[in-house]
Amino acid sequence: MKITLKDGSVKEYAEAMSVIDIAKDLSEGLARVACAGEIDGKVVDLRTVVDKDCALSILTFDDEGGRKAYRHTASHVVAEAVKRLYPNAKVAIGPAIDEGFYYDFDTPPFTRDDLDKIEEEIKKIIKEGHELTRYTLPRAEAIKFMQEKEEPYKVELIEDLPEDAEISFYDQGGFVDLCAGPHLMSTKQLKAVKLISSSGAYWRGNEKNKMLTRIYGTAFTKNADMDAYLAHLEDIKLRDHNRLGREMKLFTTVDVIGQGLPLFTPKGTKMIQILQRWIEDLEDNEWGYVRTRTPLMAKSDLYKISGHWDHYMDGMFILNKESEGTKDGKEVMALRPMTCPFQYYVYMNEQRSYRDLPYRMSETSTLFRNEDSGEMHGLTRVRQFTITEGHIVLRPDQAEEELTRCVELANYVMTTLGVQDDVTYRLSKWDPDNKDKYEGDAEYWESTQNFLRNVMIKNNIKFTEADGEAAFYGPKIDIQAKNVYGKEDTMVTIQLDCSSAEKFGMYYIDQEGNKALPWIIHRTSMGCFERTLAWLIEHYAGQFPTWMCAEQVRVLPISDKYEEYANEVSKKLKAAGIRNTVDARSEKIGFKIREARLDRLPYMLVVGQKEQEEGKVSVRSRFKGDEGAVELDKFISDILVEINTKEIKKIEVQEEQK
Amino acid sequence: MKITLKDGSVKEYAEAMSVIDIAKDLSEGLARVACAGEIDGKVVDLRTVVDKDCALSILTFDDEGGRKAYRHTASHVVAEAVKRLYPNAKVAIGPAIDEGFYYDFDTPPFTRDDLDKIEEEIKKIIKEGHELTRYTLPRAEAIKFMQEKEEPYKVELIEDLPEDAEISFYDQGGFVDLCAGPHLMSTKQLKAVKLISSSGAYWRGNEKNKMLTRIYGTAFTKNADMDAYLAHLEDIKLRDHNRLGREMKLFTTVDVIGQGLPLFTPKGTKMIQILQRWIEDLEDNEWGYVRTRTPLMAKSDLYKISGHWDHYMDGMFILNKESEGTKDGKEVMALRPMTCPFQYYVYMNEQRSYRDLPYRMSETSTLFRNEDSGEMHGLTRVRQFTITEGHIVLRPDQAEEELTRCVELANYVMTTLGVQDDVTYRLSKWDPDNKDKYEGDAEYWESTQNFLRNVMIKNNIKFTEADGEAAFYGPKIDIQAKNVYGKEDTMVTIQLDCSSAEKFGMYYIDQEGNKALPWIIHRTSMGCFERTLAWLIEHYAGQFPTWMCAEQVRVLPISDKYEEYANEVSKKLKAAGIRNTVDARSEKIGFKIREARLDRLPYMLVVGQKEQEEGKVSVRSRFKGDEGAVELDKFISDILVEINTKEIKKIEVQEEQK
Repeated sequence: MKITLKDGSVKEYAEAMSVIDIAKDLSEGLARVACAGEIDGKVVDLRTVVDKDCALSILTFDDEGGRKAYRHTASHVVAEAVKRLYPNAKVAIGPAIDEGFYYDFDTPPFTRDDLDKIEEEIKKIIKEGHELTRYTLPRAEAIKFMQEKEEPYKVELIEDLPEDAEISFYDQGGFVDLCAGPHLMSTKQLKAVKLISSSGAYWRGNEKNKMLTRIYGTAFTKNADMDAYLAHLEDIKLRDHNRLGREMKLFTTVDVIGQGLPLFTPKGTKMIQILQRWIEDLEDNEWGYVRTRTPLMAKSDLYKISGHWDHYMDGMFILNKESEGTKDGKEVMALRPMTCPFQYYVYMNEQRSYRDLPYRMSETSTLFRNEDSGEMHGLTRVRQFTITEGHIVLRPDQAEEELTRCVELANYVMTTLGVQDDVTYRLSKWDPDNKDKYEGDAEYWESTQNFLRNVMIKNNIKFTEADGEAAFYGPKIDIQAKNVYGKEDTMVTIQLDCSSAEKFGMYYIDQEGNKALPWIIHRTSMGCFERTLAWLIEHYAGQFPTWMCAEQVRVLPISDKYEEYANEVSKKLKAAGIRNTVDARSEKIGFKIREARLDRLPYMLVVGQKEQEEGKVSVRSRFKGDEGAVELDKFISDILVEINTKEIKKIEVQEEQK
Repeated sequence: MKITLKDGSVKEYAEAMSVIDIAKDLSEGLARVACAGEIDGKVVDLRTVVDKDCALSILTFDDEGGRKAYRHTASHVVAEAVKRLYPNAKVAIGPAIDEGFYYDFDTPPFTRDDLDKIEEEIKKIIKEGHELTRYTLPRAEAIKFMQEKEEPYKVELIEDLPEDAEISFYDQGGFVDLCAGPHLMSTKQLKAVKLISSSGAYWRGNEKNKMLTRIYGTAFTKNADMDAYLAHLEDIKLRDHNRLGREMKLFTTVDVIGQGLPLFTPKGTKMIQILQRWIEDLEDNEWGYVRTRTPLMAKSDLYKISGHWDHYMDGMFILNKESEGTKDGKEVMALRPMTCPFQYYVYMNEQRSYRDLPYRMSETSTLFRNEDSGEMHGLTRVRQFTITEGHIVLRPDQAEEELTRCVELANYVMTTLGVQDDVTYRLSKWDPDNKDKYEGDAEYWESTQNFLRNVMIKNNIKFTEADGEAAFYGPKIDIQAKNVYGKEDTMVTIQLDCSSAEKFGMYYIDQEGNKALPWIIHRTSMGCFERTLAWLIEHYAGQFPTWMCAEQVRVLPISDKYEEYANEVSKKLKAAGIRNTVDARSEKIGFKIREARLDRLPYMLVVGQKEQEEGKVSVRSRFKGDEGAVELDKFISDILVEINTKEIKKIEVQEEQK
């Protein structure tokens, strides 16, 4: 038989051979790191016997298929370790997942101490170096086997397999698990295995079933890789906006108010105020927008025109629903999930001519989503959010320039926030297999999608394309960002809509004096304030650029004697528009500095006798640490440049946060 | 019999005499202007016969009772005039009202032309000078009389009178109307009668009855008074925010969105943005507030604690009501009618000590009222409004100073807006006859009311007191303003609340380290933006102080040739932060000036060859008219002073608006 290898070379073998033996034939070194095989594109076990012509790759930890086999083997070792230590624990399932693996057991919850003990046992099992062997059993025997082992979950799994399924087991030195594979040849191949956490999980993910105990873990081939991964986890935990944002007192939530309804405390409120004023002024003064302020609700009549009443009712908060059909004077209304038609009516408030276009409207707009409480999370999954949303009503001949300007503005905003490298662009298209969900025909979708694609290509933007992600009225350019856990959210969206104007009776008077249908761009220039704040917290780990800090400077008098000078400094800073406070408590200066660091302040100004005499301040910055004493006026003029240019200063000396 | 007159003197008459005869006996002049009498405090007809000792006043047009008789007589003349011109019209009722009278007829609607014809007929009737005579009829005869006249509404009115009621009629030269009086002696006494408008009105105000045609009119004893009144009406019409605000394109409403849900168009939005930023910065930077941003809705749990769920449910928008008791993941919530508990939870997010108080929180807060659509009006009766609302958590010993500061801040805000002379202060107290509606006992209310009263007295504030106007948790200082129609609304409120802290479990750590209950001041510093904008429109008739204008300056090039210079001027103004546009249309300069005046702009800068050569601008202001040519830099520095000091410039030359 002829085996075509990854590099295109061909090997001939006289008789059938297992994948691992072919690997050994190719190179002993390769065989030692082999985790799985791939035959004609399908991942297979190393024990699989090749008996005819095919394309074969040997997969190592660097390949996804190999990595999964490696970590799946680690999960079996975890199961063996648990069974050794807790013989009454019943095993359920234990697959490999994106960054590691898990295994579910029917047993009381594990503490961290328990996990540490299990890790010790895992090390032993690896050291013992058991070969893994695979065998199959007929259905009845397989069930009997697991019944005798008193493993009811495995019995249930086998019973649920299709009648004709091959039922395979892997044995590692006596510990046997029901498994389709693939697996490593020996537990000895495992190098670094770590148990990350333990939590509850319903059997088969169904809340009607019993709650089992899940162990999350991961495995690497090198200790250094494991260390890097654990450091990354630690960093994520520190950056997680839902923890850090609360710790820094930017926001909170309250049980009786509800999840997904964050309360912004003074510092978070000030940051949002800064962002809001910046973006409003940017759009109005530099990018030619007019601002609107439209109601947060409307009668059902409006949503019947827009189509939301039929297509999106479940996602909306309906008001006075019980009034429908009655004459009680309370009209049936809904909180808005979007700003579109409200701004359309602002456009329609006056007759517009071709000379008035493009007419660019923007609004700091609060929107609502009627979601289940279980889906809520921190600032990223909320029931109410506020976004700088706008609509550009334009002539078709203006579309390319306006779309380009929208992309430029979003890019300018993200660059100023310092997060431009976190994002990816996506062309969100309709789903041609699901035409009912969309308005307009294939031609409409092809042409509008082409339009957006060409704008991105012309502007040298790298992007992916995704079917089924468009709005029902048109395709979108979505600018996506990931949170610390890797979950992707849309931050900015720019949509082309050539169909809504007709539905709402919007028009402009063209050069010939006739009514003509405009096109509409739906766009944001920054994500909603809630998600943006979450993003900034995680991106900067709370160490925000000075211009957006609620508190930019804290003045720290060394003792009560210098409080007056500290207040004088504070007053001068305030007069220059610099947000600052004085920490005049009778505490040691070291304590005050530590607290200011915990609050992630960019600047501390320590003042004592010398500073007072010389009209100076001793600067401690988050960027360079101790910067020494400088004239107050010099400090003020420097920080004003930093603030006014929205500088994102490099942190040259990372001081301890805790 | 002895008659005691208004001046305290006593007249004796031997026999019974009518009021008009006594008036004649006192002075022929008085008798000529007498409209009614007042016997022992009760208004009576001039024809009433006095037959025993009493106190008697002769009422003229200057007394309310006299004025009502005068205008009521005018309404009878209107009825006679209508019957002469439209014999098929059926008469209903025609009372005197605050500023005039009305009369309802069952007849097709009247046009202005019809009203003018009726006015001509009224003049004839007055000239004819019919004496009015009064007589009574027994019930059956009265009904028969009106049945023969084919006046079904009068028949119904008589039938509805109590069995023992006296049924009186007034006859003026043959035209007879059912009426209790009092009336003038003759139609000749009427001098100026004017029909103001006509509209539909349901018979007896019930929408299930027939729609009748109402004529509104008024009457004065002097033509000059009538002219002044009509000018006042014209002024009201010009100032009415619901007309002028739309005409100036500050806001609009849309049928399918709903009444009470104004859409602010770009100019109105900019004005609100200016007011919002000003008040936020004022509170945060000058008055020691911290800012919050809390959700617009909460679960029913919160409102159950606050008491709103039991006491105010009808006024709230309830969300997911149908979820109650079900497990569909959608929680029952409500849009907030107030900010109080949301800010309480911000306070409770950290432990606070006596040193941290007073803790002053403010929020630009949107609130909701679930009102009937029929009650909505312009910007003053709305379903959704935004207000700078705040709560001060404080120790009892801080209450007097903080309350005083609240009054001072509100006063500063109203003075800066230029509306301080429009307001009156009211101490809003509980209703001691309706104790169930309030929390706390008489002692609590007496002491808190005394507290507020003393703060106003100490600060030399004139105020009235009103029972039953308090919040359910405490008394208020309400600052009231009237709209152009005389309707009073609360603009600012400052409330003392010594009971909510306990209910929500709010406390502070006192000097001894124990938990202590704080007091709370609920306060606003400016009315909601919607009402404030309405107030400003009416107060200034749209001619706003420069600092709050959406467009402060318009640059008008005399011809296309100077467009470049106009743009240069505009750019310089913009760089200085002055909101301006260029009117570069190919229109005559007179036309451009007229349009800018209609937009109530404070400044127009006309530029032509001379201005361009000399680097000047020709200033036309709303204050002084043509101010001549000045250096552009001089204009900029002058207007910046005006803007930055929020100057309210006097209008010295009133130019035509139309």
